[in-house]
Amino acid sequence: MGPGGEFDLIRKLLGPEQDLPPGVDVGPGDDCAVLEGGLVISADLSMEGIHFQRDWLTPEEVGYRATAAALSDLAAMAAEPLGALVSLALGSVGPGPSTSPGAGDEAGLTVADSAALAMEVQKGADAACQREGIRILGGDLTRSPGPLVINVVVLGRAGSPVLRTGAQVGDEVWVTGWLGASRGAVRLWERGEIPTGKLRESFALPRPRIREALWLSERVPIRSLIDISDGLAGDAGHLAAAAGNAVVLEETSVPAHPALAAVLDPGEDSALFSLQGGEDFELCFAVPPNTLDEWVDPFQDSFAIPLTRVGEVA
Amino acid sequence: MGPGGEFDLIRKLLGPEQDLPPGVDVGPGDDCAVLEGGLVISADLSMEGIHFQRDWLTPEEVGYRATAAALSDLAAMAAEPLGALVSLALGSVGPGPSTSPGAGDEAGLTVADSAALAMEVQKGADAACQREGIRILGGDLTRSPGPLVINVVVLGRAGSPVLRTGAQVGDEVWVTGWLGASRGAVRLWERGEIPTGKLRESFALPRPRIREALWLSERVPIRSLIDISDGLAGDAGHLAAAAGNAVVLEETSVPAHPALAAVLDPGEDSALFSLQGGEDFELCFAVPPNTLDEWVDPFQDSFAIPLTRVGEVA
Repeated sequence: MGPGGEFDLIRKLLGPEQDLPPGVDVGPGDDCAVLEGGLVISADLSMEGIHFQRDWLTPEEVGYRATAAALSDLAAMAAEPLGALVSLALGSVGPGPSTSPGAGDEAGLTVADSAALAMEVQKGADAACQREGIRILGGDLTRSPGPLVINVVVLGRAGSPVLRTGAQVGDEVWVTGWLGASRGAVRLWERGEIPTGKLRESFALPRPRIREALWLSERVPIRSLIDISDGLAGDAGHLAAAAGNAVVLEETSVPAHPALAAVLDPGEDSALFSLQGGEDFELCFAVPPNTLDEWVDPFQDSFAIPLTRVGEVA
Repeated sequence: MGPGGEFDLIRKLLGPEQDLPPGVDVGPGDDCAVLEGGLVISADLSMEGIHFQRDWLTPEEVGYRATAAALSDLAAMAAEPLGALVSLALGSVGPGPSTSPGAGDEAGLTVADSAALAMEVQKGADAACQREGIRILGGDLTRSPGPLVINVVVLGRAGSPVLRTGAQVGDEVWVTGWLGASRGAVRLWERGEIPTGKLRESFALPRPRIREALWLSERVPIRSLIDISDGLAGDAGHLAAAAGNAVVLEETSVPAHPALAAVLDPGEDSALFSLQGGEDFELCFAVPPNTLDEWVDPFQDSFAIPLTRVGEVA
């Protein structure tokens, strides 16, 4: 039941969708719940020691990353963000991140230490919100007996939310951006090295593809949409499972991140590495054949990331 | 920065309210944020070892209590509940609760153990939702390196949300129900005893006063409203601070819970104990003089709990 297994267990836990109460259009199982009127809402819990290690990230990066990950669920519905609620639990502090070697070991925090730490995390969460034009609306703050915990709930609005369920046989499957850099950063940390540049950024400061999703949904009849948080191989499978069909990925067309060259072992396949790579927060979506081609260049001009056809629905 | 100190620190963290973005009527600092159209939202994070001990509560009670506590923030705005999002992190498990001595020590959970534990917690959360006629709309589920963590976000709607800020000098201050039983239960656990009956129930299965708040707000011009989560003394202070005045409590009129008799030390004052007692989740509110008296009996007839005048705004 690691981060990757949550999807299936949540569905099992929360029961069938058919008994949704009045006022709820989509319940558990998609990226967000959808209420009457197009209000969408989603929660994302990040846990020290599971989703990140404290010596990998600064407190500000912890806040930014958790919030960006939650906002990515709005992108996965093609929703406009309205606001976020950030709940935080913190207590003991491990060694500082490797990029600030002076931080030392700070176990046994005073209230002032905790407040300062909370404000750093909050600053990062705020920055991720501000990038999308929203604010933190509230939240909770409490002591933790150990790990730092941050839960971010995002609220948005979608005129016509794009679900996971609409893919049809013959649809093309596309992804935004490059994949695998976040997994590449984790590999470096696990080797005792410190990722920098694009590799670090893709793990520590990921960019939810909210504007990209809105842009695409205004121009192309997107049939189903998901954000890549478990790796393309896993999430394309979720897309297929939700629609009751299968996605055939073409490994040779996977857009492996160029910065991976510095990470891979000799002879290791970058496409395979990227397919199984964790939290890219890029979008994966299905469109009817030949509906997207004309928009590939305008998309790249607008957002400076590629749009790549990676397979089809079978 | 224990549970009680969160209020002040959150306010400090989240900055002044004057720069609320468009579409946000009330930001951080009240019990819920309020969006245009009367949508209210609040988050509540409960942490093992801080808000509860695992050997005090069954997993189902953990879920019920955390959800009821979050729902109580809707009562504090006189809002109708719409739904909840429940995020859960769990991993290692301590000894079972004292009421099931056969549970033993279950450290080193398998995935099946974790799923079973998660479903128990979820069942309790569901029960608290169903009591208010709502459902769990979504959430998150992940592994924890240690403590059980549950974050509950509640969504509601309020035609005219009652804030903390409206109390005026001369207003009467009232509370619903009896106070102190939750603190009484904690004292018993801390003594190594096991609370039962009303004492246990008030800690493990608290009742958010949602219907009571709606009933009152339809009949009485409530000027300000808060739920009692830090003890009446603390929360009446929050009410006063929000309005820029003071609340004078009459200690002799505090409705100490009858079940406290079994808990107090010889000579200990039940009113004083109740004033400082933790999470009662009763309501504390201010009304103009002589506007509530005629409703005291009808309220008690409807809800079978008292309504007590405990002081005034000075």
